[in-house]
Amino acid sequence: MASRITRDITKYSFHDDYSEGAHPNIIEALAQTNRSQQSGYGDDEYSEDTRQAIRDLIGTDKIIIYFAPGGTGANLLSVASHLQPHEAVIAAESGHIVSKEGSAIEASGYKIIAAPGANGKLTLDIIQLAFGRSAEFAFQPKAKMVFISNATEIGTVYTKGELEAVTALCKNLRLLLLLDGARIDADLTSSKNDMSLIDIYNRTDVFWIGGTKNGALLGEAVIIKDPAELRYHMKQRGALLAKGRVLGIKFRTLFQDDLFFNLERSSNIVAAEISSCLLALGYKLWAETDSNQELQKELEFFIWEHLQDGPLVVRLVAS
Amino acid sequence: MASRITRDITKYSFHDDYSEGAHPNIIEALAQTNRSQQSGYGDDEYSEDTRQAIRDLIGTDKIIIYFAPGGTGANLLSVASHLQPHEAVIAAESGHIVSKEGSAIEASGYKIIAAPGANGKLTLDIIQLAFGRSAEFAFQPKAKMVFISNATEIGTVYTKGELEAVTALCKNLRLLLLLDGARIDADLTSSKNDMSLIDIYNRTDVFWIGGTKNGALLGEAVIIKDPAELRYHMKQRGALLAKGRVLGIKFRTLFQDDLFFNLERSSNIVAAEISSCLLALGYKLWAETDSNQELQKELEFFIWEHLQDGPLVVRLVAS
Amino acid sequence: MASRITRDITKYSFHDDYSEGAHPNIIEALAQTNRSQQSGYGDDEYSEDTRQAIRDLIGTDKIIIYFAPGGTGANLLSVASHLQPHEAVIAAESGHIVSKEGSAIEASGYKIIAAPGANGKLTLDIIQLAFGRSAEFAFQPKAKMVFISNATEIGTVYTKGELEAVTALCKNLRLLLLLDGARIDADLTSSKNDMSLIDIYNRTDVFWIGGTKNGALLGEAVIIKDPAELRYHMKQRGALLAKGRVLGIKFRTLFQDDLFFNLERSSNIVAAEISSCLLALGYKLWAETDSNQELQKELEFFIWEHLQDGPLVVRLVAS
Amino acid sequence: MASRITRDITKYSFHDDYSEGAHPNIIEALAQTNRSQQSGYGDDEYSEDTRQAIRDLIGTDKIIIYFAPGGTGANLLSVASHLQPHEAVIAAESGHIVSKEGSAIEASGYKIIAAPGANGKLTLDIIQLAFGRSAEFAFQPKAKMVFISNATEIGTVYTKGELEAVTALCKNLRLLLLLDGARIDADLTSSKNDMSLIDIYNRTDVFWIGGTKNGALLGEAVIIKDPAELRYHMKQRGALLAKGRVLGIKFRTLFQDDLFFNLERSSNIVAAEISSCLLALGYKLWAETDSNQELQKELEFFIWEHLQDGPLVVRLVAS
Repeated sequence: MASRITRDITKYSFHDDYSEGAHPNIIEALAQTNRSQQSGYGDDEYSEDTRQAIRDLIGTDKIIIYFAPGGTGANLLSVASHLQPHEAVIAAESGHIVSKEGSAIEASGYKIIAAPGANGKLTLDIIQLAFGRSAEFAFQPKAKMVFISNATEIGTVYTKGELEAVTALCKNLRLLLLLDGARIDADLTSSKNDMSLIDIYNRTDVFWIGGTKNGALLGEAVIIKDPAELRYHMKQRGALLAKGRVLGIKFRTLFQDDLFFNLERSSNIVAAEISSCLLALGYKLWAETDSNQELQKELEFFIWEHLQDGPLVVRLVAS
Repeated sequence: MASRITRDITKYSFHDDYSEGAHPNIIEALAQTNRSQQSGYGDDEYSEDTRQAIRDLIGTDKIIIYFAPGGTGANLLSVASHLQPHEAVIAAESGHIVSKEGSAIEASGYKIIAAPGANGKLTLDIIQLAFGRSAEFAFQPKAKMVFISNATEIGTVYTKGELEAVTALCKNLRLLLLLDGARIDADLTSSKNDMSLIDIYNRTDVFWIGGTKNGALLGEAVIIKDPAELRYHMKQRGALLAKGRVLGIKFRTLFQDDLFFNLERSSNIVAAEISSCLLALGYKLWAETDSNQELQKELEFFIWEHLQDGPLVVRLVAS
Repeated sequence: MASRITRDITKYSFHDDYSEGAHPNIIEALAQTNRSQQSGYGDDEYSEDTRQAIRDLIGTDKIIIYFAPGGTGANLLSVASHLQPHEAVIAAESGHIVSKEGSAIEASGYKIIAAPGANGKLTLDIIQLAFGRSAEFAFQPKAKMVFISNATEIGTVYTKGELEAVTALCKNLRLLLLLDGARIDADLTSSKNDMSLIDIYNRTDVFWIGGTKNGALLGEAVIIKDPAELRYHMKQRGALLAKGRVLGIKFRTLFQDDLFFNLERSSNIVAAEISSCLLALGYKLWAETDSNQELQKELEFFIWEHLQDGPLVVRLVAS
Repeated sequence: MASRITRDITKYSFHDDYSEGAHPNIIEALAQTNRSQQSGYGDDEYSEDTRQAIRDLIGTDKIIIYFAPGGTGANLLSVASHLQPHEAVIAAESGHIVSKEGSAIEASGYKIIAAPGANGKLTLDIIQLAFGRSAEFAFQPKAKMVFISNATEIGTVYTKGELEAVTALCKNLRLLLLLDGARIDADLTSSKNDMSLIDIYNRTDVFWIGGTKNGALLGEAVIIKDPAELRYHMKQRGALLAKGRVLGIKFRTLFQDDLFFNLERSSNIVAAEISSCLLALGYKLWAETDSNQELQKELEFFIWEHLQDGPLVVRLVAS
């Protein structure tokens, strides 16, 4: 495994966004706050401050916020705290919970009803068809949730109109809507984006803001509306960290001075430059990419997928 | 929950060991290493260095080491990676997995066969009796593992002779032995201790060294012998952190200059002083305590247990 | 395994109630109805007729009834259909789900909070204490259900007053009440019983009437109030039988002509005779037994439990 | 639900194979054996006799046989007793465990890696591709088993050569092979079949012979090679029936006088007649059907699937 990336960093690495450390301001904050005694399990004042920052950003004090140690955990907890053991979640095949999170959802007892996906997104037709399959009793579990990512795993984003339509269909079919925000910064700062955090909050039942990919060392902020006793689920999955402060501090720093979105804005500009360059060289972009998830060669990369007959798809991410 | 401890720290808080930050050396190491690009998922060189430090300490290069984000996760992963879905684990009622980890073990499908415990420890008779109960087919799941903590949750420690006897019985009954080392430093630095880390390694099938309680911000080092594909389990439980470096760095720092054990030696001296003081004042110690888990009053504390008829038991931990 | 009971049935066997076949009327009903085409999955008219018979007996048309293939399945389904994944069930240590059903409940993700039990029963104090332990957040899962058996596994029965008190406490603590009725016939026909099926229905959230032990070849009728989508759970656990008719027919026969209770009345008379006989011979009864679950020697038996220091406890059941 | 089939059976019903009762010989056997006292939990002599009959048929005494109450349970138990909690099973999208068993496999913690399927079957390419996807660590669980049905859910059968190739690939990739034999009789009596039960036994790690669809009231015989402690799993899932005799008797009867295969031979002849008739009338068969799973109109039927744009697919089964 150690050879997955070379240690020589004299050439540029677009491998993934996990090779980086944290933003320097976060390390400084950890140092400054280190000697203060704080409540454990996420009740510390740094976590509370961060919660308040997110509440201010969204514009309501009612929202409930937890910090999960990673993206797989954030999705697992979002599903487990909202679904009963006989219910299932509809997701695109390219969705992180389907193809990149081991059997985290299934190990907790839930079936994922995988649907083809259109450029990484779920359309109304796709959801309706998947829901229809689950409707005949006994053969399929009860569909109860729709999972989408924004930006998606392949770099596309939902427009406000698209999200609104998905939300309306979900309400109609009595489905909950979960939005995976591992790349929510890439979404909100994309040139094709027409949504704010408030828009996302108003159109989902649960969503999370990724910290790991966005300058924090680890930690994702899960935002739920229903007091679904998420902390019991966190404890149960080993995700309730005794020193929850470590997550809280990092997020607090990120939300100060708009650091969170500024970081991503720079990435998107770099990504756009690489993209233009690639097209100029004659390469083809696999996905209609709207955010910083472009594809490139002669750089370090992850093999993203072998298409059944044809080209190798690689993924590059700018940091 | 926010009121669980007061924010005024002008009086001494012996609440628990999670209220503290990290040792300053750890914060410094995070700062120094922050700008280096590293492999994700625990393949970074800091994690690897820490692994080597632990291997050196134990004196063998063969051992496999993973870093889990917390103690509940460490136990969950140790059980899940060693037991099959129809097997069960024998533990004392005071054991952390029985009484303090929610339903983490059960949520992963495993039954805990709880036994009374003798001063927080499992004796040969207790294990034999619990095993016997599980032996009649169909009524009980197949007992396959014994769980002990050292130091125990109430501060007692196993002697080398006691551990040796438990190990021999386990081998005889084909049971695996898991040792929860959340308080392993308290154990190894206790005046009643006659064991080294190597002794523990040689007498268990899996054990872990607690970081959260011992100066790290978070993270426990799980040491296994059997290549049990723990990383799949970590991914599955949301415990495989993308930026695994955060765990690696912390441990590396702790093991430099014997910081790990020096920290605990100081705690034990403080704890011994408090203990004497309490006895002098006429208070009674609930458990025959061998390490830093003493009881005190007029300080902040956790209500540990309401004994059925009688006194309130409180727990205090020195840091 | 084959040697667990001898094949020589010239001496009387009081081994358990599973060695018996079915009541002859049931076999006849199977034969008579065999050629009729019926809906699968429990929608057949025999199952529907049985449901109506039970509804008539209880006196309300509103109740929802499912047929589970066995007692372990009935308990598993009752728990899984009512609890969310982070909730737990309080039960006596002698309770079937604790000591005699493998890890069926845990394999579905639920922790059982085991309490000592008083002569096989749960008292208000015991429930309150177990509930109190679970109340401190994060250390224990959320207690949400109380499990009792009537008659209990050791032959005692709850009086109407006792059940009423347990019901009131559960309501007060927001706990659901599940009554395991594997021996409900022994209960209802016991000389110490002062309750009808309606009384039980009115004081529980879910209960089941055992068929396996009561003259049917297999099958238990689970009676729930909350339309908890039990059929999804049945499918999920492999308990939704395609030819559900086989369960339905058996129960229909049992409820015709009061066969269900007449069968048990005879058993209780036999059991009382054996009991008197044993006491006359100087043997001691382990449990204050109120129904047909007496203890005897010089007959085939199951070793029920090795008490820690002392006598062997055996169980005998009259059929 | 009750309206799913009409009660009027004056027109022919090809609805499914669950509407039928049992073969009269089975009912007679139940009656004849009813008064004999037998060991519970599948140790009765009827179950043992049936085991011997199957062993004779396959030609080896070494095989281990259990009786599960239904097909979903048989698959669930086959998977759970062979896979560890972090392993996954590859199956065709049309496979029963993917599309017709609720979330039975997932509720036990296992992910199904669904592959497109070629006419209901898995080819070497499909298996290889699915396996390849799971090979990149951490993103997917470890593929450990391949699931096939024979005859498949849409009526096609594997030739001996095809099965042999799948077996060889599985050995090569260290994958176990599970064969769902709910329609094994349809397979073995199909005109396109060139395999015996022994051939199937020699080329799989676990397979089961369906009783529910083949004249028994309920029960499937699971045949495993590895003493995987299946009974613990059965208990754990509520599938270990106290009066296991009910399953044993039924199978014993079916295997007497070749009743099992004679029943299916007649069905196949009827099915072939219907098929010819349909083609003559100008209808098109959806699947290249090799066994009794033909399609027809003007009869009772299940809507099998709505193809995305186009015709309604119906399924008819002859009994």
